[in-house]
Amino acid sequence: MNRRDLLSLTAAGSAASLLPCPALAAPAVKLEKGATILFQGDSITDAGRDRKTEGNANHPAMLGRGYPFHLAGQLLTDHAALGLSIYNRGISGNKVPDLEARWQQDCLALKPGILSILIGVNDIWHKLNGNYDGTPEVYRDGFTALLERTKTALPAVTLVVCEPFVLRCGAVNDSWFPEFETRRSFAEEVAKAAGAIWVPFQAKFDEAVKAGTEPAYWAADGVHPTQAGHGLMAKVWREAVGI
Amino acid sequence: MNRRDLLSLTAAGSAASLLPCPALAAPAVKLEKGATILFQGDSITDAGRDRKTEGNANHPAMLGRGYPFHLAGQLLTDHAALGLSIYNRGISGNKVPDLEARWQQDCLALKPGILSILIGVNDIWHKLNGNYDGTPEVYRDGFTALLERTKTALPAVTLVVCEPFVLRCGAVNDSWFPEFETRRSFAEEVAKAAGAIWVPFQAKFDEAVKAGTEPAYWAADGVHPTQAGHGLMAKVWREAVGI
Repeated sequence: MNRRDLLSLTAAGSAASLLPCPALAAPAVKLEKGATILFQGDSITDAGRDRKTEGNANHPAMLGRGYPFHLAGQLLTDHAALGLSIYNRGISGNKVPDLEARWQQDCLALKPGILSILIGVNDIWHKLNGNYDGTPEVYRDGFTALLERTKTALPAVTLVVCEPFVLRCGAVNDSWFPEFETRRSFAEEVAKAAGAIWVPFQAKFDEAVKAGTEPAYWAADGVHPTQAGHGLMAKVWREAVGI
Repeated sequence: MNRRDLLSLTAAGSAASLLPCPALAAPAVKLEKGATILFQGDSITDAGRDRKTEGNANHPAMLGRGYPFHLAGQLLTDHAALGLSIYNRGISGNKVPDLEARWQQDCLALKPGILSILIGVNDIWHKLNGNYDGTPEVYRDGFTALLERTKTALPAVTLVVCEPFVLRCGAVNDSWFPEFETRRSFAEEVAKAAGAIWVPFQAKFDEAVKAGTEPAYWAADGVHPTQAGHGLMAKVWREAVGI
């Protein structure tokens, strides 16, 4: 039984009484003492973080009010002996070219041991609004180049690529499809080609909606997660990354 | 084997491979559909919460940057079908008499199904600073009266009393002892008499320090938890309350 099967089994609950927490099962990533974990992305990652404390690892206000905050609390607790440094450098409105433009100071300079990236919603949203003309292929190629550049600069980095997602409510209407699906599958392709860990956010939000909750429970405007949505993201991230 | 033994066993790791997550084991509390969960206390609970969104259940800014934020994310995710309403009404600097003075509007009016209270550090700190003269017995009797009043107004409420705690660093010096120990044991006495669930924060922080982390890792000034400290609190709370 491989790790993915083990997690599915746990998720399905069929072996819940025989297995430990999914987050603690069969770690895929070895956390080094003193490692830096960096969360990068757009407004979903940003989540109202304070810029003034940007340089202070593990600072609550710097972490924002989203999934990086949740994950920092959990990881700093569960790996207290390691002295981790956790940063959030998501910026609201960012697309792949925006990450590219600030990659040296906002990623490479921090020398992350684990780098988690969630990017893609603005790449389509701004295009639908007429403020950007990048095609899905531009997204795919730019994202690929960004990961290549990262691996060259930081050969030992563990890459985590998060699945871009939307909920079918609020600002998200039929005009997003099927292009959003194309971009989502490109993200997965890019992740696989780079040997990155894939965090299946869309898949898990789809499951949650299928189980009976309203899409707006997870993201009122279809894009920005609620408190519940960020909680689910943190859970899915830990299951996928295994730390 | 009772629930406490089961949790100790899990914590000790000796049966980790045979048991599910401690938080999911043997729930002590039945969560009702549409239930309200209220966190009450002082600055540790407040954790920089936004007052303008105080009336909006589950709002990220209203929840502050502490253990209530972590717990809200986790509970709203894990109990999505229940439509929970979670509030934080902690206020920085509060002692038992301050809770008493605002209890009608900031607790009873919200009709919580689960009420979690963490109070006691300012009751001693302000006394050490010469700004208050309440003895440990005043703390005990005031806390007892507050819980009695709550049970009379809300007979079905599940009470959760959190252990006041300090770390031995920062503002916390020898002058706090043994009085702090007396107050801590009074809190436990009050909780037991009221039939409340007891959340052993001090015990768990002591364990964490004994395991080799610096006290300041959990609370830089000895009183206000860091990101790691709030993460640990959320974990301990869930284990104790069992939801």
